[in-house]
Amino acid sequence: MRDIKDFNLSCPIPIEQYPHILLAHGGGGKLMHNLIDKMFMPSFSNKMLNSQHDGAIIDLGKAKAAFTTDSYVVYPLFFPGGDIGKLAINGTVNDLAMCGARPLYISVGFILEEGFPMETIWRVVKSIQEAAERAKVNIVTGDTKVVDKGKGDGMYINTSGIGIIEHSMEISPAKVEQGDLVLLSGDIGRHGITIMSTREELALESEIKSDTSPLSDLVMELLEQGIEIHCMRDLTRGGLGSALIEIAVTSGTHIHIDENTIPVSREVQATCEILGLDPLYVANEGRFIAFVKPSDAEAALKIMQSSNPEASLIGSVETNPSGIVTMKSTIGTNRIIDMLSGEQLPRIC
Amino acid sequence: MRDIKDFNLSCPIPIEQYPHILLAHGGGGKLMHNLIDKMFMPSFSNKMLNSQHDGAIIDLGKAKAAFTTDSYVVYPLFFPGGDIGKLAINGTVNDLAMCGARPLYISVGFILEEGFPMETIWRVVKSIQEAAERAKVNIVTGDTKVVDKGKGDGMYINTSGIGIIEHSMEISPAKVEQGDLVLLSGDIGRHGITIMSTREELALESEIKSDTSPLSDLVMELLEQGIEIHCMRDLTRGGLGSALIEIAVTSGTHIHIDENTIPVSREVQATCEILGLDPLYVANEGRFIAFVKPSDAEAALKIMQSSNPEASLIGSVETNPSGIVTMKSTIGTNRIIDMLSGEQLPRIC
Repeated sequence: MRDIKDFNLSCPIPIEQYPHILLAHGGGGKLMHNLIDKMFMPSFSNKMLNSQHDGAIIDLGKAKAAFTTDSYVVYPLFFPGGDIGKLAINGTVNDLAMCGARPLYISVGFILEEGFPMETIWRVVKSIQEAAERAKVNIVTGDTKVVDKGKGDGMYINTSGIGIIEHSMEISPAKVEQGDLVLLSGDIGRHGITIMSTREELALESEIKSDTSPLSDLVMELLEQGIEIHCMRDLTRGGLGSALIEIAVTSGTHIHIDENTIPVSREVQATCEILGLDPLYVANEGRFIAFVKPSDAEAALKIMQSSNPEASLIGSVETNPSGIVTMKSTIGTNRIIDMLSGEQLPRIC
Repeated sequence: MRDIKDFNLSCPIPIEQYPHILLAHGGGGKLMHNLIDKMFMPSFSNKMLNSQHDGAIIDLGKAKAAFTTDSYVVYPLFFPGGDIGKLAINGTVNDLAMCGARPLYISVGFILEEGFPMETIWRVVKSIQEAAERAKVNIVTGDTKVVDKGKGDGMYINTSGIGIIEHSMEISPAKVEQGDLVLLSGDIGRHGITIMSTREELALESEIKSDTSPLSDLVMELLEQGIEIHCMRDLTRGGLGSALIEIAVTSGTHIHIDENTIPVSREVQATCEILGLDPLYVANEGRFIAFVKPSDAEAALKIMQSSNPEASLIGSVETNPSGIVTMKSTIGTNRIIDMLSGEQLPRIC
């Protein structure tokens, strides 16, 4: 066995600064990106991983496919509009769709805590079944582990997924270029605010529901209509703000958006104000952004609006400076959108 | 939301008998099979899942592939011969190999507990990297979640994997037939006894090491040499005994083995005697059984022995009665091998 000191010396995250993992390391912000960029990427480096997409584009001889994984640790397990099972299917389906792939096959791995009610497992299993049917995917393989009481939190679920790529476009952050227009598929912040309200037992006038839903039908429609899509990303942990920054950095472009064009419901806005949150960083589960060729933007927006009337053109890709996101605020000033250091809310998905 | 009572009524596991999940539901024995057969299989039913293989054989247009998933919750994280990272790569690589696939792409999903030492993550990351290089697979996608302190146990890892199938054989429990010979790739019980000894801090004369290792090179060699393999299975949770029973039941055959031909090291045998365990049910991580056409058995055994001299012909597939495993014991009597109700040891992998 190697000397532990050797590991301390070579550990790419400074141990004296971060001796232990923090909740924020899983929150979609700066600390998580630091962990990924400094520890995981250099260790596992290969061209598929390095593309930093929602999933990997893999080569299987005569077929091209997308492959993705996510673990779901959402708390509480049930919330208005969904539950951990529905989230686990839709989240992975959406990551495949963001790669421009048709989702086909899903694996489900349960980590159950000893003492967890059998009836609750059954409810989640039925929810998984319904969500898989709706998203037209098959659950083809699985795994069940049980950990001792006090070593889990009822139920964690990992889903991995495979989708087939039936077109010849390359859809990835690297393809984003100057002039691309940025489309948003609907209003933002519903999922995060729903989880937070449920947790905090906020009594809200009208109940907000999570937006969790499969995006694959809409994405397939865009592709079938021949829209030239350069990149897509779903707006989960870290929200719209983090997704835009990730893409600006990976593509080396400057993305400029207009706050006035970003739909936020009255209820989400009000709750954000009460809780002191910025909806730009609140997690969504059924929303995405698409970077499209300018001449295709109108047609793409029309297709997106037929699925959700609030879909909107929110910005464009500019020239220098690169790797940043700027936003024209509602009062007309321009500001730089920065990535959050930590996170607004742990265990959102 | 549906009435909870409806769920109780329709839950396929009798709630009054099993109101809560038990550690044994994850142990590889009867309770786990009950959960899978009664709850998961009917809910998610499709032909790929129903084959009850170590992974699913999936169709990707012009390519045929295998897809598998496993979560790793082993305790302790480090043990003689390996650690959770090495296990997470080899376990998934081996499930793909058991499908007759060449392992290519792996996903890694971490569930980390708040407060877990950064240095230990780094050690596991380096171990994953080494194991992936040795098994010739690429880690192409990943995910990191952090849960609050007290809601995990340091680190859980899910790996899912994709392998390509380059031959036209169907390797699955359904292909096992009368006359097939059963080959075992080496001595049994090392992994389970290593974990148990580490946990119990047993002072053993000679230290036993886990047998965790990738089986894909050996399986590819068998396939390249044209061995007609009907089924393979690696001997993880539940050990050799459970693997044989699973295959006998799924294939509807009678498998007969000879205890005298099953290699067990002196150290494993001695520890099993101290702890009152039957090595037949102790977990392995680098061992498998292969069901081969009788005329290919000699050649197959030779290839397996060049990798491990202890590889052995342990039995054959007989006629009726179907769905059972019998064993001629060392003293010459025949007995039926039954599946364990619970498990010998939780969190073995």
